[in-house]
Amino acid sequence: MKKYQVVGIGNAMVDILATEDETFLTENNVEKGIMQLIDMTRAVELYDAIGPAKEISGGSAANTIAGIAHLGGRTAYVGKVKDDQLGAIFAHDLRAQGADYDTVFAGADAAQETGRCIVVVTPDGERSMNTYLGVTEFLSPEDILPEQMAEAEWIYLEGYRFDGPESHQAFAKAIEACKGAGGKVSITLSDPFCVSRHRDAFREMIQNDVDLLFCNRAEMLSMYETDDFEAALAVARSEVPIVACTDSENGAHILAGDARWHAPATEVQIVDATGAGDMFAGGFLWALTSGYDLERCGRMGCVAAGEIISHIGARPEADLKELFAQHGLL
Amino acid sequence: MKKYQVVGIGNAMVDILATEDETFLTENNVEKGIMQLIDMTRAVELYDAIGPAKEISGGSAANTIAGIAHLGGRTAYVGKVKDDQLGAIFAHDLRAQGADYDTVFAGADAAQETGRCIVVVTPDGERSMNTYLGVTEFLSPEDILPEQMAEAEWIYLEGYRFDGPESHQAFAKAIEACKGAGGKVSITLSDPFCVSRHRDAFREMIQNDVDLLFCNRAEMLSMYETDDFEAALAVARSEVPIVACTDSENGAHILAGDARWHAPATEVQIVDATGAGDMFAGGFLWALTSGYDLERCGRMGCVAAGEIISHIGARPEADLKELFAQHGLL
Repeated sequence: MKKYQVVGIGNAMVDILATEDETFLTENNVEKGIMQLIDMTRAVELYDAIGPAKEISGGSAANTIAGIAHLGGRTAYVGKVKDDQLGAIFAHDLRAQGADYDTVFAGADAAQETGRCIVVVTPDGERSMNTYLGVTEFLSPEDILPEQMAEAEWIYLEGYRFDGPESHQAFAKAIEACKGAGGKVSITLSDPFCVSRHRDAFREMIQNDVDLLFCNRAEMLSMYETDDFEAALAVARSEVPIVACTDSENGAHILAGDARWHAPATEVQIVDATGAGDMFAGGFLWALTSGYDLERCGRMGCVAAGEIISHIGARPEADLKELFAQHGLL
Repeated sequence: MKKYQVVGIGNAMVDILATEDETFLTENNVEKGIMQLIDMTRAVELYDAIGPAKEISGGSAANTIAGIAHLGGRTAYVGKVKDDQLGAIFAHDLRAQGADYDTVFAGADAAQETGRCIVVVTPDGERSMNTYLGVTEFLSPEDILPEQMAEAEWIYLEGYRFDGPESHQAFAKAIEACKGAGGKVSITLSDPFCVSRHRDAFREMIQNDVDLLFCNRAEMLSMYETDDFEAALAVARSEVPIVACTDSENGAHILAGDARWHAPATEVQIVDATGAGDMFAGGFLWALTSGYDLERCGRMGCVAAGEIISHIGARPEADLKELFAQHGLL
């Protein structure tokens, strides 16, 4: 048995969550519902503009790994923080959840701080994310430990990480070590605009290395540059052994070869959509590496996502296994 | 009209909130339901022990001032943070709520960090607080601006601040400047064990300077070293013009001279009791300085406290004025 069911690689950051109405978005040039990269000047400006906030550890793949750890899965995370207070918060919350986290912190002399995401949550529960990457942008191949990747049944790569200067090399190193030891590769497309920034690189990786593709409808359409969702799914399933595509209130579509399943969305009051896709992947990957069939993986993913959107913050608060049991999935 | 309805002086800190069961408290020597002072070593040890947490600005008087600002009151806060990430979070959340906050930050070379309180919330909603004071312990008379105190209709002094080395002199300076300009002095006893650490100093201030005393039943009993609640109330009302004593699910008792009122507690599901007393004082002081009678001050205090205990964290999330209106108080 490998040491880890899943090892995730992503942008490490702490979320700063504030609730604001729609006019705040227009007045402050915040694009609704997507992730925008911002520099420190903009981060300071936007932070000054938002009301009182809460700080909760985030980071897309880190949320997924936290979910797997919460479920009792053997899991580890790779992502860069600085040796500062936010870095300590990020590391604590991941380790306290039961995940291994051994990435070397950037020193106190690093020019950037630990990354943060200013998440503006509107009354409809939609989240508009403004990310100051900080030191997490500079994760390098040196931060990837081949022996850790070799110990992973699956690695999980965060699409957002395509934005860093050495991120492609870091991913390549991780993939080589993982696959070389018989492991498999999953990736999330993260965001439609992230996809359009790096479409060719994503496509190449998908065609050559990816065994399991996570995305949502908008990312799928962006990836294959079409408005035809079914056409995009058809290409994706021809390129990747397993495709798990979420579709908001329509649940998720799971495709593998000629087989296809649909998992319904859990009916919940949406408080904060932050992390829904992350936790779908968390539930799915935990289920997959625990021996459940693909349909059940999709259904567990949807239940896990439903828990996350019912409260502020992207880390689980209720007992996910209990929720799985309530839905007859365990 | 004075610039401020209320200026608060207290220990500035960020709360680190984690939910744990009762066995955690015994296994980690955490005393239930009270505030314990801890050093950095213990803070690190306890932080390592708790599960994933959330960070939300706290500090007893700061919560009160945030509540007054939330209600639209003219208010300011005095308390010490360091120029670090937690300090920036604390300052942001207070200013973003609409309160003035001009206390000079301790520099990056300060030996201590910004204060924090590790709050362990048990399933019954009770909170057990473990406070690393950090730089807030060292608020000195220099941090008290007499011209600001002179601009306050009321100052609000946090009993926890009796613990710092120069805190008594700082309070004396604030009281002198406030009273010299015709302002009034309110104080909260904060905690029964804080009272027993500084009973004589509290008593002297109550007898000589205090116009409005906030406390809860346990603090009142500790203050007057008796088990007889009514006897303690009788002494307190003989020493202070207004006494506002909260009594958990029994609401609050308001006494002024020969008059006495009772304000019922709001019926809510207790999620996290952190900050109930702080927000009682916030609602009460806002009402008092907005011209409402003492009975209504007590009732608004209880409604404000009810909002706070219905969610994690000690800063208001719902619209308190709307809640006052729903309760027929506005």
